[in-house]
Amino acid sequence: MVQKVSQWVAEKLYESYHQAFEVKKILYDKLSKFQHIVLFESKSHGKVLMLDGVVQLTERDEYVYHEMLVHVPLLSHPKPKKVLIIGGGDGGALHRVLMHKVANVTLVDIDPKVIEVSQKYLSTVSGDSFADPRVSLRFEDGAEFIKNTTEKFDIILTDRGDPIGPVQSLFEKEYYENCKNHLNESGILVSLTGVPFMQSAELTESVKILKSIFKINECYLVPVPTYIGGPLALTWSSQSIAPLTIDIKNLTRKYKKITTRYYNPNIHLASFSLPNSVREILK
Amino acid sequence: MVQKVSQWVAEKLYESYHQAFEVKKILYDKLSKFQHIVLFESKSHGKVLMLDGVVQLTERDEYVYHEMLVHVPLLSHPKPKKVLIIGGGDGGALHRVLMHKVANVTLVDIDPKVIEVSQKYLSTVSGDSFADPRVSLRFEDGAEFIKNTTEKFDIILTDRGDPIGPVQSLFEKEYYENCKNHLNESGILVSLTGVPFMQSAELTESVKILKSIFKINECYLVPVPTYIGGPLALTWSSQSIAPLTIDIKNLTRKYKKITTRYYNPNIHLASFSLPNSVREILK
Repeated sequence: MVQKVSQWVAEKLYESYHQAFEVKKILYDKLSKFQHIVLFESKSHGKVLMLDGVVQLTERDEYVYHEMLVHVPLLSHPKPKKVLIIGGGDGGALHRVLMHKVANVTLVDIDPKVIEVSQKYLSTVSGDSFADPRVSLRFEDGAEFIKNTTEKFDIILTDRGDPIGPVQSLFEKEYYENCKNHLNESGILVSLTGVPFMQSAELTESVKILKSIFKINECYLVPVPTYIGGPLALTWSSQSIAPLTIDIKNLTRKYKKITTRYYNPNIHLASFSLPNSVREILK
Repeated sequence: MVQKVSQWVAEKLYESYHQAFEVKKILYDKLSKFQHIVLFESKSHGKVLMLDGVVQLTERDEYVYHEMLVHVPLLSHPKPKKVLIIGGGDGGALHRVLMHKVANVTLVDIDPKVIEVSQKYLSTVSGDSFADPRVSLRFEDGAEFIKNTTEKFDIILTDRGDPIGPVQSLFEKEYYENCKNHLNESGILVSLTGVPFMQSAELTESVKILKSIFKINECYLVPVPTYIGGPLALTWSSQSIAPLTIDIKNLTRKYKKITTRYYNPNIHLASFSLPNSVREILK
């Protein structure tokens, strides 16, 4: 008699609570210079990318996160030409940015192995993005890049993980100050700031720093199914552009030129409505 | 040397994907006449109630679901006096209904053991609701009750689980037809219809039936952290009241009289904005 043995991978984000996926096949499982990269084919969510035991994306729901990270600021900005992505080595944000009429996109990820693995296994996520002539790849610490660059950007997206491992520097005041200094007048910075229901300190502390630097700071929420524990918070910071100042007609006209599965102008506007529990954090 | 042994409980809702909680203490674990009732104290989410292996609520996030299930229709209705809750033996919906100026609330749950266990262990969820003189408890199949009752209601809430086990009858056309026949002219029926990202058939089939019965059918989404897999869909059905017809000033005035942690008028209105993927299901 043959026994059916199944293999599961459990996430290591929270100590006493986790999500777990049944595995069809482990495709990659190695330590890079910076982190433990695991990529597997799950039975329920397509391919899953984990860094240091934390889910970065699944093929099944990555569109929710990437569309909201990218299209909300890019459709709000009057004319985004130069875009910087800090992190995002999987190419999912890059893929969405390239749907817009941008002149160039710089992607800075500290770990070339993440990009290599993503290019090999996650073409459904990045499409042909890495081959697009508008794209410049840089393999270095995003905090160092933004300190030293002479360029200015219209949009900066902090597509980082949680404040552990190699991305810690992307949570410091200096990083945000350098972002401000390298944004154009009508520039917008959007940063991932965790799941407030489980990680309220991440949002609280980020907002405290951002408020000391930018004139306009808001937060919007995105329920990404496999970022478990509740909706994800994204912070919006700018010196001149407030969210929701673009009217829905204008948004709808621009939106018709891109292809989405989650994003639409109503969801865009609705995502800035915050529950009481998150409003308290932002006070 | 003493080895630290920890016990986990994994949910059994999806075959190849689950959430799991580290357990402090199992408080109740028995088969009732209808289902397997498990109640445990978790390390991360307070007490957790599971029926047939599926999370019904956790103390930490039940307010998200119950506030949106209850306050959205009750604050939209001009004068809700008589309310019927089908299911909801944990008392969480009842607790929120009683915050409104209702004359009486009937709660019909097939399983008295669920109410008994909830009253004993989940007083943080139900408060003093079960002792409120406005409340009538009935222990019977909700589908049978609604077929045979001579009463009419202003609001009916179908606070059921997934279409497995004892609640199957609450997904049938006859149930919804009987709800329509026992709603007053301006009555509203709100029903739980699963997590569309994982269980799209539940919403698709429910909406198909509802559209054949009610003039107005809409859907709103609530991201309940421990209903994993994405935001939960709640369907709104009525013969005369469309959602979003109440203006925000009126909503805000009424809202000030209740106490909430998640719900507010902005979230209420925003919850009816649906992502493309859910719009497709509703087409």
